[in-house]
Amino acid sequence: MSSLNSITQALAALSITPSETVQHASATSPAAWKEALQNVPKTPKEFELLKVLVFKPKTAKSATPIPVVVVARDDTETSSSSLGKKLNLKELRLASEDLLSEFFSLDKDSLSPLALNAERFPRITTVVDASLTTVKVPLAVRACSSSETVFLSGPDIIAYLRNLETAEVKVQEVDFVALKSEVVDGVAAQAKPAEKKEKKAEKDDAKIEGAVQIAIGVKKEADFAAWYTNVLIKADMLDYYSVSGCYVLKPWSYSIWEAIQEWFNSKIKEMGVENAYFPMFVSQKVLEREKDHIEGFSPEVAWVTRAGQSDLEEPIAIRPTSETAMYPYYAKWIKSHRDLPLKLNQWNSVVRWEFKAPQPFLRTREFLWQEGHTAYLTKAEADKEVLEILDLYRRVFEELLAVPVIPGVKSEKEKFAGGLYTTTVEGFIPTTGRGIQAATSHCLGQNFSRPEMFNIFVEDPNDPTGQGKIHVWQNSWGLSTRSIGVMVMVHGDNQGLVLPPRVASVQAVIVPCGITAKTTEEQRQEITAKCEELVVTLKKVGVRARADLRDGYTPGYKFNDWEQKGVPLRLEIGPQDLAKKQTLGVRRDTGVKAPIPLTGIETAVPALLETIQNEMFSRAKEVYWSRVKQVTEWEKVVPTLDDKCVVVLPWCEVESCEDDIKERSGRAAEPQDERAPSAGAKSLAIPFDQSRWDPIIPGKTKCPACGSDAKRWTLFGRSY
Amino acid sequence: MSSLNSITQALAALSITPSETVQHASATSPAAWKEALQNVPKTPKEFELLKVLVFKPKTAKSATPIPVVVVARDDTETSSSSLGKKLNLKELRLASEDLLSEFFSLDKDSLSPLALNAERFPRITTVVDASLTTVKVPLAVRACSSSETVFLSGPDIIAYLRNLETAEVKVQEVDFVALKSEVVDGVAAQAKPAEKKEKKAEKDDAKIEGAVQIAIGVKKEADFAAWYTNVLIKADMLDYYSVSGCYVLKPWSYSIWEAIQEWFNSKIKEMGVENAYFPMFVSQKVLEREKDHIEGFSPEVAWVTRAGQSDLEEPIAIRPTSETAMYPYYAKWIKSHRDLPLKLNQWNSVVRWEFKAPQPFLRTREFLWQEGHTAYLTKAEADKEVLEILDLYRRVFEELLAVPVIPGVKSEKEKFAGGLYTTTVEGFIPTTGRGIQAATSHCLGQNFSRPEMFNIFVEDPNDPTGQGKIHVWQNSWGLSTRSIGVMVMVHGDNQGLVLPPRVASVQAVIVPCGITAKTTEEQRQEITAKCEELVVTLKKVGVRARADLRDGYTPGYKFNDWEQKGVPLRLEIGPQDLAKKQTLGVRRDTGVKAPIPLTGIETAVPALLETIQNEMFSRAKEVYWSRVKQVTEWEKVVPTLDDKCVVVLPWCEVESCEDDIKERSGRAAEPQDERAPSAGAKSLAIPFDQSRWDPIIPGKTKCPACGSDAKRWTLFGRSY
Repeated sequence: MSSLNSITQALAALSITPSETVQHASATSPAAWKEALQNVPKTPKEFELLKVLVFKPKTAKSATPIPVVVVARDDTETSSSSLGKKLNLKELRLASEDLLSEFFSLDKDSLSPLALNAERFPRITTVVDASLTTVKVPLAVRACSSSETVFLSGPDIIAYLRNLETAEVKVQEVDFVALKSEVVDGVAAQAKPAEKKEKKAEKDDAKIEGAVQIAIGVKKEADFAAWYTNVLIKADMLDYYSVSGCYVLKPWSYSIWEAIQEWFNSKIKEMGVENAYFPMFVSQKVLEREKDHIEGFSPEVAWVTRAGQSDLEEPIAIRPTSETAMYPYYAKWIKSHRDLPLKLNQWNSVVRWEFKAPQPFLRTREFLWQEGHTAYLTKAEADKEVLEILDLYRRVFEELLAVPVIPGVKSEKEKFAGGLYTTTVEGFIPTTGRGIQAATSHCLGQNFSRPEMFNIFVEDPNDPTGQGKIHVWQNSWGLSTRSIGVMVMVHGDNQGLVLPPRVASVQAVIVPCGITAKTTEEQRQEITAKCEELVVTLKKVGVRARADLRDGYTPGYKFNDWEQKGVPLRLEIGPQDLAKKQTLGVRRDTGVKAPIPLTGIETAVPALLETIQNEMFSRAKEVYWSRVKQVTEWEKVVPTLDDKCVVVLPWCEVESCEDDIKERSGRAAEPQDERAPSAGAKSLAIPFDQSRWDPIIPGKTKCPACGSDAKRWTLFGRSY
Repeated sequence: MSSLNSITQALAALSITPSETVQHASATSPAAWKEALQNVPKTPKEFELLKVLVFKPKTAKSATPIPVVVVARDDTETSSSSLGKKLNLKELRLASEDLLSEFFSLDKDSLSPLALNAERFPRITTVVDASLTTVKVPLAVRACSSSETVFLSGPDIIAYLRNLETAEVKVQEVDFVALKSEVVDGVAAQAKPAEKKEKKAEKDDAKIEGAVQIAIGVKKEADFAAWYTNVLIKADMLDYYSVSGCYVLKPWSYSIWEAIQEWFNSKIKEMGVENAYFPMFVSQKVLEREKDHIEGFSPEVAWVTRAGQSDLEEPIAIRPTSETAMYPYYAKWIKSHRDLPLKLNQWNSVVRWEFKAPQPFLRTREFLWQEGHTAYLTKAEADKEVLEILDLYRRVFEELLAVPVIPGVKSEKEKFAGGLYTTTVEGFIPTTGRGIQAATSHCLGQNFSRPEMFNIFVEDPNDPTGQGKIHVWQNSWGLSTRSIGVMVMVHGDNQGLVLPPRVASVQAVIVPCGITAKTTEEQRQEITAKCEELVVTLKKVGVRARADLRDGYTPGYKFNDWEQKGVPLRLEIGPQDLAKKQTLGVRRDTGVKAPIPLTGIETAVPALLETIQNEMFSRAKEVYWSRVKQVTEWEKVVPTLDDKCVVVLPWCEVESCEDDIKERSGRAAEPQDERAPSAGAKSLAIPFDQSRWDPIIPGKTKCPACGSDAKRWTLFGRSY
């Protein structure tokens, strides 16, 4: 293996010879690693594991984070809070897999001090466990691989790291035992409340540093970003992937996407839209044809430059969206007004190589979506469709995902690059008080069809001379898997995911209960049979039901499992229930328990699922609207935003004013977590329904930001 | 525009100054170009268009074709047959868009003599119209763009080309007027039959050189490759794309894929398979983990090396298939035998950057497919699933696409790289007598799960010591859009596409007929109403019906249109039919016409569609089996293959013998068209049903190729 070779060479250059080098089964935990090593004959009889931990300090959005790499004996207690205090860094957190992969091109199971080299060392803070100098046995060091280990002495490891030091950047040797008592002493000298806080922080750290990096138990309100990823992992929605910014969509989340696909497909097909598939590749020339449009995308375009061993003559882009890829063909296919309207849609993935911190579903380098592209003879027809599609998007969110959204139009600054205007349904994440763009439907006008661009025209059927040309009116519209992330954020709670029944791949889970040592085999079988019968009964009426008859798991374990996964309804069946000819229904969304008679259950359960769906939506809607605040004085904008609300301002609709609002509201704010960027407020939408707020009196109502005449009530907020 | 700049510079270096340089609307035909130029004030009052034609001579498969580039005045008659004769080249044909794009990185509307440079010139034969030397007006020359033109004098154009000449490669000046009479004289001196042939060839050329490059009228039996692409274009299945080897799937073909998806999804979901989505990107390290496996794919892997303006630290592959991308996660997710079986499937696109000539659906650089990846505790379970899936594939072909296939197992040489064994359903294209792999279901065995590889294991649930480990048994299986190409090739005829009813997005088209000048407005309306009513009636019983009520098209035009598109059933309704309360049904597959009474049509039409479906399959099956020839003597192998058949040999199953058969049967054969490669016969499948052929007597029946003991009857053939 080449990495092993280069490691051995690097060590040899420092005259360090590993006491042994072994290959072993791939191991993803310290325990498994130890076991794997012990299974290899060459492994020294006595050894200790070396651990490498990477922490990220909290930094302002704009700053580049400097990771802290701790190289220590596996047994050494390395409290991140104490270390943070020592290094004077705020809120050290274990780094995400993404950061590891980006910084070291390694996952946590391959991470090694030997991955530090002249290039990486200056960009990090390296902390080494002082007790390495005295350890007697060889240390097992990952050879930048989960299946290869080199055995080195403690001093050799330190020597390797010291060799990387520069005039500016040194290795920090820390005595963690001493550090612990220092901090405790320090805390003891302070007042009580501070002590409490410190202890709490340590407790939290301990949790995170435990066996599993992604553990349940982070509260939604306390650390939203960690809560979100935890829920996704625990609910079996998603897994991290070896290419940074990409994620595996597991069946539990993909089935939600399938539910959305099925519903949306049926609706657009009724409208006469047909599905098609255009290639994922776009030639550079075609991609760059529309200047404003490409400007919006070019920093994020991924380029293929090589195939096998051959360099391509010209780099080829992976589509970030398909306007320019499709429209040359629209020009070719649309020869007469009889070819209009042309309405195509495709379900595909697009790639936007974001350099900001990725976040599952919300900001990923590849994502799934549908993109519709239509062409009409007249603007009126195009305008009509833009709104029809937007209303379908609203229904996807409100009727399927139970997520309230506000339909409106984007400001000029926020509209789709190269389009005429953009309509949007804007969602809201109450926990952070941030807006989130849910889906957009664009009218492109004639910008892509005009003669200098793709020149998509037909003879004007109403021109008697036959000379008149009409360049077509185009729309494009897209809905992505981001919708799933929004749903998780809005509905999830501290027990995990909460799924709206209409998109849940399991709507009701039936769990046998109350089986004890006293239960007879006959009773057991009766309960099992009843569970299975109930599944059949419910499936017949279209309920996606499943019985959890797994052996060796307690009902409590199963409850927890399905709660984490957000199944809307749990039906418990035990001996008592059987006697009473009922089942105990437990709602995931409210936790409310109520018996449901088995007689008539085929109508009761579907009705209850509908109730759950509707109530989830109503509650979410109530929260959203309670956080939309009408504000008419600038002084109240930032405090209202800080209060986790969005504001509706009577706005002048001038772009420079929008920039100004963003700048002024951002400056005032606290430095934010980089996962929730854009601390300044931007315009989210100009809602179609203006009647909710006081009438704007032309010439009288003023924009609270700049004092000019206000035009329309506009939603501003911090956003994703 | 940079290309214009570089052109102007190149000309300036030769002291050539264009009389004018203009930008104009993009134009895709000579007429449109002329018009676009005339709309620009700067365009000279008088000018002629310059045309550039690229021809490809027929060459043996192994040879690199040397394109012939003809630079001529637009009015000059440039007969390709005469030119071929003059240059002593066989069957000059207009080059495909793919070739243009690959050779010149230009489409036909941007093609320009100015695209010839020191690098390209030696690789082509350049022919220049001698009359360019005498033309008086400026010539409009494409500036390597469909929207930019430079005006040059004839002698300037020739000077530009002469400047590229090397010691070996010269420009050929041809007097096309003289050439024409030469050839005519030559033909006149020959015998009658030859003259006929020559004239026919000229006629064919004329057709191809006409306004539309892809024109109907090529016979399936005469030029299968041209027929195939013509059908695809004319039936509105597909369009060429600006990235070579990629194609646009239009709704007419994509809907077939949707029909396959819906059916196959429902079946695999019954089997407990769940859909998921893994990213399209694979890190180099992960991709290259399984050596045998990657060897099979690496020459065709597309690599992303740049994002925006940043070079990636490591190139990232686009998946050619997902085994190595998925299995690290299988190792992570499968922790106990309770996690088995794991059955995931995804519908996605994969990229294999083929360097052979692409062919729509059959060999494309990006294609759509599903890939299933499953893991089991035991081999028996894995074996069972391999065959269950293969049978679903058989049913997709036979029951949906009406395409007969032979199920069997692949030879060791032809199995999936890195797998244990591969099962296949093998199709057959009667027109070329070639086999075609339709879909494959692989048992990977424990090759990917073994400790040195992805180490996917569980504790053996049946081992009382708790020490035993079982590495899981894995399968992978895939079906691609290639299936659509096979269907087109098998069923299409000289009128165009023929669709089996079950996958046709329009199963019955209703066309109003018999409307003449004498028809009253009332009758007209009655006919229209009846057509619309019939659509409603048929839709109610699940028939995908459409009425073609387009104004301004004759019934004959409509008949032709829907025939080309392959709609299974046409229902004509005219005044006579109305009077008789009937409709005239016309079958696309047989052309048979028969009246269908309107009373009871809701049962008659579905029944007729079923009949069409079944008869299409029966006929195709009969043809297939009539071309599967039992052969036991080597001498008969090549003649049987030449007779457009596949052979079943009692084969020894030794790999060197397979190589030998391929080599010997290839050597004997005629040089083949490059689009149908592999003139030598390879093993297609060892059919599961061996009972069709004489029993093989162990130790007695010999392999006809090498004389060793035969094992099983094996299908050999030329193939795609």
